[in-house]
Amino acid sequence: MNNLTINDTICALATPNGVGAIGMIRLSGSNSFNITSKIFSKNLLSAKTHTAHFGTIKNEGELIDEVLVNVFEQGKSFTGEESVEISCHGSSYILQKVLTLLLENGCRLANPGEFTQRAFLNGKMDLSQAEAVADLIASQSNSAHHIAMKQMRGGFSSELKDLREKLIHFASLVELELDFAEEDVEFADRTELNDLVNNVLEYIRKLAKSFELGNAIKNGVPVAIVGQPNAGKSTLLNALLNEERAIVSDIAGTTRDTIEERIIIEGIDFRFVDTAGLRETEDYIEKLGVERALKQVDESAVYLYLFDASKLTLDEIKKDLEQFPSDISQIIVANKTDLLDEKSLKVLKDSGLEMVYISAKHKDSLDDLKERLLKTIDADQLNSDDVIVSNARHYDALIKTISALEKTKHGLETGITADFIAMDIRQAMYELGTITGDISTDDLLGNIFSKFCIGK
Amino acid sequence: MNNLTINDTICALATPNGVGAIGMIRLSGSNSFNITSKIFSKNLLSAKTHTAHFGTIKNEGELIDEVLVNVFEQGKSFTGEESVEISCHGSSYILQKVLTLLLENGCRLANPGEFTQRAFLNGKMDLSQAEAVADLIASQSNSAHHIAMKQMRGGFSSELKDLREKLIHFASLVELELDFAEEDVEFADRTELNDLVNNVLEYIRKLAKSFELGNAIKNGVPVAIVGQPNAGKSTLLNALLNEERAIVSDIAGTTRDTIEERIIIEGIDFRFVDTAGLRETEDYIEKLGVERALKQVDESAVYLYLFDASKLTLDEIKKDLEQFPSDISQIIVANKTDLLDEKSLKVLKDSGLEMVYISAKHKDSLDDLKERLLKTIDADQLNSDDVIVSNARHYDALIKTISALEKTKHGLETGITADFIAMDIRQAMYELGTITGDISTDDLLGNIFSKFCIGK
Repeated sequence: MNNLTINDTICALATPNGVGAIGMIRLSGSNSFNITSKIFSKNLLSAKTHTAHFGTIKNEGELIDEVLVNVFEQGKSFTGEESVEISCHGSSYILQKVLTLLLENGCRLANPGEFTQRAFLNGKMDLSQAEAVADLIASQSNSAHHIAMKQMRGGFSSELKDLREKLIHFASLVELELDFAEEDVEFADRTELNDLVNNVLEYIRKLAKSFELGNAIKNGVPVAIVGQPNAGKSTLLNALLNEERAIVSDIAGTTRDTIEERIIIEGIDFRFVDTAGLRETEDYIEKLGVERALKQVDESAVYLYLFDASKLTLDEIKKDLEQFPSDISQIIVANKTDLLDEKSLKVLKDSGLEMVYISAKHKDSLDDLKERLLKTIDADQLNSDDVIVSNARHYDALIKTISALEKTKHGLETGITADFIAMDIRQAMYELGTITGDISTDDLLGNIFSKFCIGK
Repeated sequence: MNNLTINDTICALATPNGVGAIGMIRLSGSNSFNITSKIFSKNLLSAKTHTAHFGTIKNEGELIDEVLVNVFEQGKSFTGEESVEISCHGSSYILQKVLTLLLENGCRLANPGEFTQRAFLNGKMDLSQAEAVADLIASQSNSAHHIAMKQMRGGFSSELKDLREKLIHFASLVELELDFAEEDVEFADRTELNDLVNNVLEYIRKLAKSFELGNAIKNGVPVAIVGQPNAGKSTLLNALLNEERAIVSDIAGTTRDTIEERIIIEGIDFRFVDTAGLRETEDYIEKLGVERALKQVDESAVYLYLFDASKLTLDEIKKDLEQFPSDISQIIVANKTDLLDEKSLKVLKDSGLEMVYISAKHKDSLDDLKERLLKTIDADQLNSDDVIVSNARHYDALIKTISALEKTKHGLETGITADFIAMDIRQAMYELGTITGDISTDDLLGNIFSKFCIGK
């Protein structure tokens, strides 16, 4: 922990850029009250914590703004430091002026993420919680918000604490043995050790596996829609969009001018990429646009293969499906079932292919399709109390922990000496410690917080 | 004043849309504490005014956010009503959720400008002050900020109050005469009345005239740069831009991707429009691109005629200048003076044309040019304590006041009866009253506040 970096007082715009009724500038550091008092019409040095003060900000007699100032005592703020919030009129000119005045009076402009970094350095949160602040701000769906909030509130941290305690117990058993190494005694029952490491491994593997869902939730689930021309891809997208449009359009920042259509289903952000522009060509293989479709499927977590059930034969369907890789979740969707007779339907159902039967035009059975989509990412986990890992850095650390624990396990199995086993366990504990920041380096912190915006 | 409209509690996002560390939602109305308490982890009903409260917002057990809530008692807030400010994490998802919860618990989404409108209706400010809030938020230059701040602080209002008092004095003199109309007595000395009306007229004319500067400051001063190819238009623009770039680029929201270049000189926002694309044609008249240049000059407050002093003859210059209208401020700029010999310079100086002599390439004498630009809008007024009118509605009301006062004056001169004179004075007082909102209609208020953003 580098105390040098948190000796000064920092300031930054905390609200988004742009014109609004109010714009807020935040200060943190031991001179916050003092510096603000220099430019504010009231002296804040003896102001009580958590009080709001209306007054003016002047620069050499020139009135810059009428503002509201909130003060927070050391230990009672987000960063843990003496802090001030200045709410100005939301003019970029005014905010710029006030920031300039603060800089002239002894503040330093905050680095990206420095407020949150200080909260971490001052012990107000661990590293995984600090990272969750950024995720929380970026969250645009119910589930992304849910995961980030849980992480910010320390859900993940307490799981990790449990794990570390188990490992410490393990290590103590092994190291006890080490202390008596000369006497060649096995204090630690190998079976007990084995059970313990299996137990922890299983748990961490589960956490690591949850990253599949966590990552999908955080970054959205890319879904490719492939199929021949006139299979009804656009109709399906529009049908899904229309049903959910209210939810999607309520969320600001949704980009609509890409070829992606984002549809939030039960709080999960699915990013549908339509294989547009495949309609003009003649040749059958070309028609399917295998190359482009394949590329999109490769980049997706799931692909929907949509076909016109009233036209395509089973052979044609199977021929289409052969083109696609087998390692990506597949949903086969028979469309236009409203045009289908009983006999043809039976042929499809007897084919052995698992399919969803819909009519995009009539919005029939879209719920079946949604359910299948949710199944591909194992969305049920969301409803449990289990922690879901959504941060790639945490996932990476978990994978490294697993590797160290597997070495430990191998060591136990092959009867390696206790000092080597102890080393592997220490490695596992080290990796877990990087998640919470119990183990951290300036480089690591710099890397994490530089991805934050200024003002966070 | 329509009290029906201010019986409910309104809410809106007060900070700009977009991702930031903090986003603030504002409530105003008699149920603000009550509604907020329903979704907040602490009861605010007995909270002291101007205090900040940290807690959580939940929706049916689901944690939405950790927030900071500021409370303001009735009479002690911006709107004059009981008010609450909720500072959330700056996620559009969270802000949307919190707004939804507030609506579900009895809030109504605020109309554009409704917070400021309530401040007006509750007597916290007059109409011209309320209008200044919007101007203040939109201000992007030192001078625009200066004018808006002065108006918001009531500088204009007190001037108008003085004027109204003078008119009331005038009216009382005339109406005293009216009371005794039967007796055909002249209580009011006609000379005194005449002096008074002249005095007020002169003052209001001065206010109305200040709108020229005020409007230029508020909306920027459009400057057309015209001249033949290779006169150095781009070099000049770049030279001006480079010197002032630091100031311009510091201000967020500056649009750079139009053909306009905005350069703030001594706090005034000049919008330079280059007559680009005139370089390709052959014919001399065509080369000057008279048509396009003329159109741009017509839409400008000032035009710079720039010429290559080392190439163009005086006749050619005069021929160029004949093309432009005489009612728009003109600045003739002789460029490339570094390539000029003494003799040629003397020819120009003896021409009788007022010119600025510069070298854009060497950044010579750019200050002379800036000074000339500032002179065209009479920027010296800015340094005086005089009120500068920047609002088109106010200007319109002032022009109508002048018209009524001129009628009054004419009436006095032609010996019209006192009742007609009194009518004209009442008309003048009515027009002035619309500026401060002493006279207002729902239509007028609707028209003014609908131009505000939601949340103001």
